[in-house]
Amino acid sequence: MVRLGGARVLFKTDAVVEGTHFTRAATPRQIGHKAMGKPLSDFAAMGCAPAFAVAAVALPRRTSAVAARGIYLGMAALARRFRVRLVGGDVVATRGPLAVTVSVIGEATRPPVLRSGARPGDTIYVTGPLAAGRHLSFIPRVREGIAIARAGATAMIDVTDGLVRDLGHICRASGVGAELHDIPRVGSLRRALYGGEDFELLFTARRSRWLPIGTVVRRRGIRLRGRPLPDRGYEHVFG
Amino acid sequence: MVRLGGARVLFKTDAVVEGTHFTRAATPRQIGHKAMGKPLSDFAAMGCAPAFAVAAVALPRRTSAVAARGIYLGMAALARRFRVRLVGGDVVATRGPLAVTVSVIGEATRPPVLRSGARPGDTIYVTGPLAAGRHLSFIPRVREGIAIARAGATAMIDVTDGLVRDLGHICRASGVGAELHDIPRVGSLRRALYGGEDFELLFTARRSRWLPIGTVVRRRGIRLRGRPLPDRGYEHVFG
Repeated sequence: MVRLGGARVLFKTDAVVEGTHFTRAATPRQIGHKAMGKPLSDFAAMGCAPAFAVAAVALPRRTSAVAARGIYLGMAALARRFRVRLVGGDVVATRGPLAVTVSVIGEATRPPVLRSGARPGDTIYVTGPLAAGRHLSFIPRVREGIAIARAGATAMIDVTDGLVRDLGHICRASGVGAELHDIPRVGSLRRALYGGEDFELLFTARRSRWLPIGTVVRRRGIRLRGRPLPDRGYEHVFG
Repeated sequence: MVRLGGARVLFKTDAVVEGTHFTRAATPRQIGHKAMGKPLSDFAAMGCAPAFAVAAVALPRRTSAVAARGIYLGMAALARRFRVRLVGGDVVATRGPLAVTVSVIGEATRPPVLRSGARPGDTIYVTGPLAAGRHLSFIPRVREGIAIARAGATAMIDVTDGLVRDLGHICRASGVGAELHDIPRVGSLRRALYGGEDFELLFTARRSRWLPIGTVVRRRGIRLRGRPLPDRGYEHVFG
């Protein structure tokens, strides 16, 4: 968080690259959607409202005008859904893979929820079942994140590297461990634990109406029903 | 310019990609320098002070840790020179060319100088000789831009697409034409007119202490000593 002319401003940037975050099978709208969704999900995880976005697009020369417009429309549609204004950008040619970087600013009207506030005894929650395979169509949990922050979450993150790794970020930042008992999921357990890019919010709180998956404990490490889970994350690489 | 919590905020993003904005011969520090220099030059051209930056870096797998650090150091050194704080970023893997996107915010403590304010009778100036071949080592004219804005520039842009094209942007936005009489330059005249990426400021004003190159006129088009200049720009493509 930075201060600019009296305002407390959050400022995030995220890149998506063909071959790493999506394959050639992704449509231009899906690419734009994911590119905008990632930084909006960062805001969701801090419990703050995004306000303005800029996008830098590196377009391979073969890209058609229709495809370029599709990327823009994918970004603009998701931005509009959260009243975020896309206020500028840069388009450059590349001989390499398509890449889109979206940067977002918003005012922190309340202190952002950090990763470092989890306390032993807190319950661990997620905002939806994991391993849902929606990395190109997820809706960032912006409104949910703001409501969760208001309701007193102690720590929060969005699941982008896999549940175990992202929970590990919270545990290390907070100096705690986690006992998981239940993992609501659509796909396999392995994928729910290690198959990142779910973009659900993972948070700790005294209590909440969301899906409880475990408890914050003093003892370091992450365990599932007593069994230690290795800290392996999701590698963002396709094909 | 956008409003955020009472502050008037400028928000710019620029990308540099290997093969388009630099070759493999560029050092990591030069790449970082250029990536940071481009958006800072945007701020210079508006006559406003940049304050905070975030960077998204797409790194090919072969990139060494030393090279990655060099890119960061190149960005950080130039940012520090202008008291800009690099406050965040994203590093992603790519199978393709190295790409760096830097986004910058700053407070607009006075109205930014636009491209649309040139009036017939204004003099046209540049802040330095063109075709200097310093696209990897230029120092964005941030302080000069702020001083020029304060002194009453009517329109301003940084030369990134070649003098003729960038002057064309001012002329079209302002509904005027230009008569050039003198082009201070290091390299060839052709390169000074069409060889972009000089990152000098090009501006119009009643009078200024900088290098005069011509006069704003009512008649549309850009002429050099009476001879019309075709509106061809610089293509940002190497090898």
